[in-house]
Amino acid sequence: MEKSIFNSSHSKKAIQPLRYLSRAEARAIEKELLEEFRFGPQQLIEIWGHACAMAIAKVFPRPSLLKKQPTLLVVCGCEQNGAIGLVCARHLRVFEYEPTIFYPKRSSNPLYRDFTTQCEKMDIPFLSYLPTEVQLISDAYNLVVDAILGVEASLGELLEPYCTILATLKQIQVPLISLDVPSGWDAETGSSDGISPDVLVSLAAPKQCATRFMGKHHLVAGRFLPYDIQKKFELNMPEYPGTECVISL
Amino acid sequence: MEKSIFNSSHSKKAIQPLRYLSRAEARAIEKELLEEFRFGPQQLIEIWGHACAMAIAKVFPRPSLLKKQPTLLVVCGCEQNGAIGLVCARHLRVFEYEPTIFYPKRSSNPLYRDFTTQCEKMDIPFLSYLPTEVQLISDAYNLVVDAILGVEASLGELLEPYCTILATLKQIQVPLISLDVPSGWDAETGSSDGISPDVLVSLAAPKQCATRFMGKHHLVAGRFLPYDIQKKFELNMPEYPGTECVISL
Repeated sequence: MEKSIFNSSHSKKAIQPLRYLSRAEARAIEKELLEEFRFGPQQLIEIWGHACAMAIAKVFPRPSLLKKQPTLLVVCGCEQNGAIGLVCARHLRVFEYEPTIFYPKRSSNPLYRDFTTQCEKMDIPFLSYLPTEVQLISDAYNLVVDAILGVEASLGELLEPYCTILATLKQIQVPLISLDVPSGWDAETGSSDGISPDVLVSLAAPKQCATRFMGKHHLVAGRFLPYDIQKKFELNMPEYPGTECVISL
Repeated sequence: MEKSIFNSSHSKKAIQPLRYLSRAEARAIEKELLEEFRFGPQQLIEIWGHACAMAIAKVFPRPSLLKKQPTLLVVCGCEQNGAIGLVCARHLRVFEYEPTIFYPKRSSNPLYRDFTTQCEKMDIPFLSYLPTEVQLISDAYNLVVDAILGVEASLGELLEPYCTILATLKQIQVPLISLDVPSGWDAETGSSDGISPDVLVSLAAPKQCATRFMGKHHLVAGRFLPYDIQKKFELNMPEYPGTECVISL
């Protein structure tokens, strides 16, 4: 076992800036993970959902929450970002938070249906509608997690019910956490009048839009990425301490 | 959200002893996870493999290892226990250990093949044979992980190459870590002349044979288990601190 194989990444980390990915690069990394490295979608979503829950627990440990009950609302879209939100909610439940899920358009993908069943069977409540009265959301939940739209969504496509939901989320007074890409933002160019999350959890590596993120906490959940992918895409990942799966930038 | 739903487990934990499962109970829990809760095999193996790597990193943090390089050997069987070993090796690699895998009988299960590819593509070396000279193993590796046989194996069935491998592992001088059930042991009755691991990582909950475990560290990796399963099987799980996925008993 040559020392160089294991340590060559370290010297690089110190000198090169973190990479912000285009949509095409993000897509290429996921394709490589699935096709070359033979990761499964179920496996990737589990890893990312768990890492998002770890990120939320790190930024908002239960004792720091202002309300008596450690409630939070996870809003899930019907694609992969939403499935990651479902897994995140399940792990937060295991960490003894009290998540509630709002999942207005359920996917027919059997994999996403299974992630939904896991949450339902673990007694995580699902909201049948999102109150339009913003104060009700801010009163009921300590935090809101935006797992609506991911890297594949682009500005032109913002359809209902997500348009109305995002208009509501723009006004909430409790911290908003976006997974990978703030919903409604273009993964590359961001958004001038969209939501302004307080926390962004980038999956694998930050997308270009993250340069426009103005919130307090930006975390990356990409520790599991094979070194060859980190090198090929010149990710210049930060060094994760100990066994942590997320890191604050 | 009633307080009782979230807190009723805690009062129980304090007074009831941890449960040691029969083989039939272990099988019933896995069946329930897969069929009722719709967890996928890929997902469960990923969760367990990650938890085993966390357990090993907890008991043997890299700075505590005696050799200059943080090497370890993971010996994998051809069934689920071996697949968990493959995932464990991958996460240990990410945690900057230097795992080597010995996987003498490869499974044709496509899922296990994918876990193998992930390790191969991450440049984890695979041994083509296990040295019978025990000293060579003890000299090369800080630790050996036994991921050969799991809960389904029973004493009468111990076939080659595992019989010879276990005879070798019985003699090694470096710490031996068994995943779920020490290989060669009956999940219920244990073994009078088998291997004596230093560390046991029980998956979901300890099996009955764990009462005969005489090593230093017994950990459980079952935090993700739905509360309904914990209650139904009266697992009386210990309280996991913070966001930890394993706990030392």
